[in-house]
Amino acid sequence: MSTTPVFDAQADTAQARLVRAKEASRSIARLTSADKARLLETIAEAIESSTARIVEANALDIERGRADAIGESLIDRLRLDERRVAALASAVRDVATLPDPIGQVIGGHRMPNGVALEQVRVPFGVVGAIYEARPNVTVDIAALALRAGNAVVLRGGSAARESNTVLVAVMRQALADLGHDPEAIQSVDDFGRDGAKAMMHARGLIDVLVPRGSAALIETVVTESTVPVIETGAGVVHIVIDESAPMDWARDIVLNAKVQRPSVCNAVETVLVHRQAAPQLIPVIASALLSEGVAIHGDDMVAGLVAGTIPATEEDWAAEYLGLEIAIKVVDDLDEALAHIRRYSTGHTESIITTDTRNAERFLAEVDSAVVMVNASTRFTDGAEFGFGAEVGISTQKLHARGPMGLGELTSTKWLARGSGQIRG
Amino acid sequence: MSTTPVFDAQADTAQARLVRAKEASRSIARLTSADKARLLETIAEAIESSTARIVEANALDIERGRADAIGESLIDRLRLDERRVAALASAVRDVATLPDPIGQVIGGHRMPNGVALEQVRVPFGVVGAIYEARPNVTVDIAALALRAGNAVVLRGGSAARESNTVLVAVMRQALADLGHDPEAIQSVDDFGRDGAKAMMHARGLIDVLVPRGSAALIETVVTESTVPVIETGAGVVHIVIDESAPMDWARDIVLNAKVQRPSVCNAVETVLVHRQAAPQLIPVIASALLSEGVAIHGDDMVAGLVAGTIPATEEDWAAEYLGLEIAIKVVDDLDEALAHIRRYSTGHTESIITTDTRNAERFLAEVDSAVVMVNASTRFTDGAEFGFGAEVGISTQKLHARGPMGLGELTSTKWLARGSGQIRG
Repeated sequence: MSTTPVFDAQADTAQARLVRAKEASRSIARLTSADKARLLETIAEAIESSTARIVEANALDIERGRADAIGESLIDRLRLDERRVAALASAVRDVATLPDPIGQVIGGHRMPNGVALEQVRVPFGVVGAIYEARPNVTVDIAALALRAGNAVVLRGGSAARESNTVLVAVMRQALADLGHDPEAIQSVDDFGRDGAKAMMHARGLIDVLVPRGSAALIETVVTESTVPVIETGAGVVHIVIDESAPMDWARDIVLNAKVQRPSVCNAVETVLVHRQAAPQLIPVIASALLSEGVAIHGDDMVAGLVAGTIPATEEDWAAEYLGLEIAIKVVDDLDEALAHIRRYSTGHTESIITTDTRNAERFLAEVDSAVVMVNASTRFTDGAEFGFGAEVGISTQKLHARGPMGLGELTSTKWLARGSGQIRG
Repeated sequence: MSTTPVFDAQADTAQARLVRAKEASRSIARLTSADKARLLETIAEAIESSTARIVEANALDIERGRADAIGESLIDRLRLDERRVAALASAVRDVATLPDPIGQVIGGHRMPNGVALEQVRVPFGVVGAIYEARPNVTVDIAALALRAGNAVVLRGGSAARESNTVLVAVMRQALADLGHDPEAIQSVDDFGRDGAKAMMHARGLIDVLVPRGSAALIETVVTESTVPVIETGAGVVHIVIDESAPMDWARDIVLNAKVQRPSVCNAVETVLVHRQAAPQLIPVIASALLSEGVAIHGDDMVAGLVAGTIPATEEDWAAEYLGLEIAIKVVDDLDEALAHIRRYSTGHTESIITTDTRNAERFLAEVDSAVVMVNASTRFTDGAEFGFGAEVGISTQKLHARGPMGLGELTSTKWLARGSGQIRG
């Protein structure tokens, strides 16, 4: 077991780190629930006592980000002030209190011949994460992976490199301090693109890969990886304003879904308004949005109702703005809204504002997205809001996990069969 | 909706068929449980009344197989006689009686703000299967996919092409006869390798791809596919004979696991024998195997105990013989057995024969395979034996499904959120 929690890139390769993570995963998998809780508490304390060092490193990232003019939405996602560092430590403690899924018996029966079958939750082994600006992902995913008995390999965005380097070193030191193998937390940030490439082709070393970030990042990982991937995040999120939508719900929900935190995947990007409701509701919704500085891209009818509307193009319907922009389109009926969603949605979250039960139930049944809502803000699609503690990401694929992912989604299962000499007839 | 259940390759492309399958999947997803049961009964009847036609088509495949000298193990997997056709229809009826997973509420709670959250099972949409010789897979997978509300796209092996063509036509006719869209069952067999290629790159059209067959086929699909894959089947399966193994259990289980049906993935390929037990047990086990015509590849100690042992090479430890061959190795202790399994196992099934509780529990805990057994034949790793009805395959990956897959593994989930104007604070 290595006792050096600091990397030495000169004497190392990304591949070698993945091998060490796989080896370390076997000892992590055997930790008891109490061991893992103590480990996370130690990590939380280490983060707290390293606050100054973390904020300092983060300031370098912010500074470089401003110099590179990466934009305010990215700067917001990058920032770790004292309050956010405290929130990081607190999130780790929350994860420590979550029920341990490992060893849970989720099924089983005795076969007619007497063989006892049991299906139990087991760790994946090694969880890989490839992500972009937000350095809190570094800690969130490591904590969740460890709580579920996994080692973790991290590849964060270069924009957050200074912050991530410190966070990873702090967590590895906590592992070492408790006598655990620090190799269970790896970063391949210092190998740049080659680090991500090594992860995507590490079949047998990484058991599942979670990309978090832009649509382009996710597309690259899904297309290139031979390791199983959980596709997360990209959110071209829709709100449908039905003919029967109450004005206050429509206005408040669209406003909240757009401006409460515009830089995240569950923020709304496109609003589809029933033609009958458009003349009354669009001016009210648009006025609320404009007063918050949101730029409105709209079709001809929207342009006729709202001064300053930017004519919407095909690109707008497919856009994930992640900022103070929105697209608004008038539709003839629910059929047209559903067809538009089938075409442009990334399958993340869609919500309908309606008091018509038939339309609500039809929307819930026919929209093929991870989360389908009636009369609620799309901002609720979130692990913490769903009660899972810190979240690994929001899966937009249909395999293994769909929607906000918690601890259970970072586990696999295996079958145990106990017999006494049975053979098949 | 097309009403022609017969393909016209001249006027068609693989891509066009995938698009039609996706469109058809929406109507299949809305069928009630009773509709789906009736559909499967109709398919079962159609298969029965087409027995002569199916057996006739299969005879052409068998004939071509013999001419191509594909080997008896492949011929066995290819064969559809009257009894096996009856078994096919019966398997479809069994699937019809399985509880419908669709609509099942598998979780949920009310958020503190009053939004009601519900996690429900939904169909994947379109299930793709790429497989080799066994034509029964064509019917098994179509029946399971339909029962779980999915459309299905099939790409069978060229060795079974005549059989598959008839089976697919019979099933499509059954869909059409009931007024359902026959495009919900597609085959791309007539496009050869291009058909498989189109499926592997059909993100957005195929929701999950299940390869079944040789390690090479699975490797190709896992590596090339951008559609999420459930890796199935390749089985380098081990039995460990512990020092404490009773002679009759050791002999009977190894014999059963090797010869009861040698051509399938849960048949044992390598036996690891504790050095202390080797002199007593290896001659007995070997004699039973030799009397059934099994060729024995072994290390030096095995060669010293069993006349006619073929010296084992590195290739033997990694071999999936799928026939009357076996590799036997003597190990110093359980540590060496576990290390050998870590290196060579495909993560399908491993069994230990022991009466030592500590070794049994250690084996169950540390072997990282889909099914881990004590004192039972590896042949039990099977959907029907596990009580799932016909099986989609045996997953050897850790994502989504692990071990024998039944109906539940052919579904996804989605979250429904019902609110009354809630926004995030």
